[in-house]
Amino acid sequence: MSADEQAIREVVATWMAASRSGDLDAVLGLMSDDVVFMVPGREPFGKQAFAAQSRAMAQSGARIESEAEIVELQVQGDWAWLRNRLSVSVTLPGQEAMQRAGYTLTILRKSAQGRWQLVRDANLLA
Amino acid sequence: MSADEQAIREVVATWMAASRSGDLDAVLGLMSDDVVFMVPGREPFGKQAFAAQSRAMAQSGARIESEAEIVELQVQGDWAWLRNRLSVSVTLPGQEAMQRAGYTLTILRKSAQGRWQLVRDANLLA
Repeated sequence: MSADEQAIREVVATWMAASRSGDLDAVLGLMSDDVVFMVPGREPFGKQAFAAQSRAMAQSGARIESEAEIVELQVQGDWAWLRNRLSVSVTLPGQEAMQRAGYTLTILRKSAQGRWQLVRDANLLA
Repeated sequence: MSADEQAIREVVATWMAASRSGDLDAVLGLMSDDVVFMVPGREPFGKQAFAAQSRAMAQSGARIESEAEIVELQVQGDWAWLRNRLSVSVTLPGQEAMQRAGYTLTILRKSAQGRWQLVRDANLLA
């Protein structure tokens, strides 16, 4: 496994761990400032909207458990793309857990400082 | 505009024109044999499933009109990615047209023969 592939797998693992522990700042550090997220049924959104949405979810008391499995990963220079299979369980207070599974297609870029960051993410789960 | 970017824009334009005219063979020639399509709510599928689905749609008598606008395009060596904004109108015989709009995130690869082809496509419309 190349050093870049290793570093990208660590980005995904750190993202999942930081999401689980509610460390939003750590998650935000794994994406570029110009990141674009795409989900079905709404316009693409950026880092600020992602942060606002995450804070609202945390304040709702929802418990989110998710697992990611990288099914493929391709590095080309300072760019990379990967497909993740996600399994997500969302439990709102006093409600049954909602289970969802599906894929993402994600583009990453290596920053001038040598850090891999998410720059585009298409999430087919929503 | 680089020659690669020009060639990729022609792939998208040819795809749209061939889809409109029902030339499935031309569309299939614009994707690699190992292409993977992702849409919400179902497992990823490949070229054969794409072809079967297109034939079924044609046999249903549906009229499909779609427009694509490339909102961004990034080329890196023999790989590229783009985001498309699609507007699709599907009219089944005797029914009102259904309008949908949304984005795709698409990965392309330059083949050994120098032809750009779709290899991964996440379609957020469905």
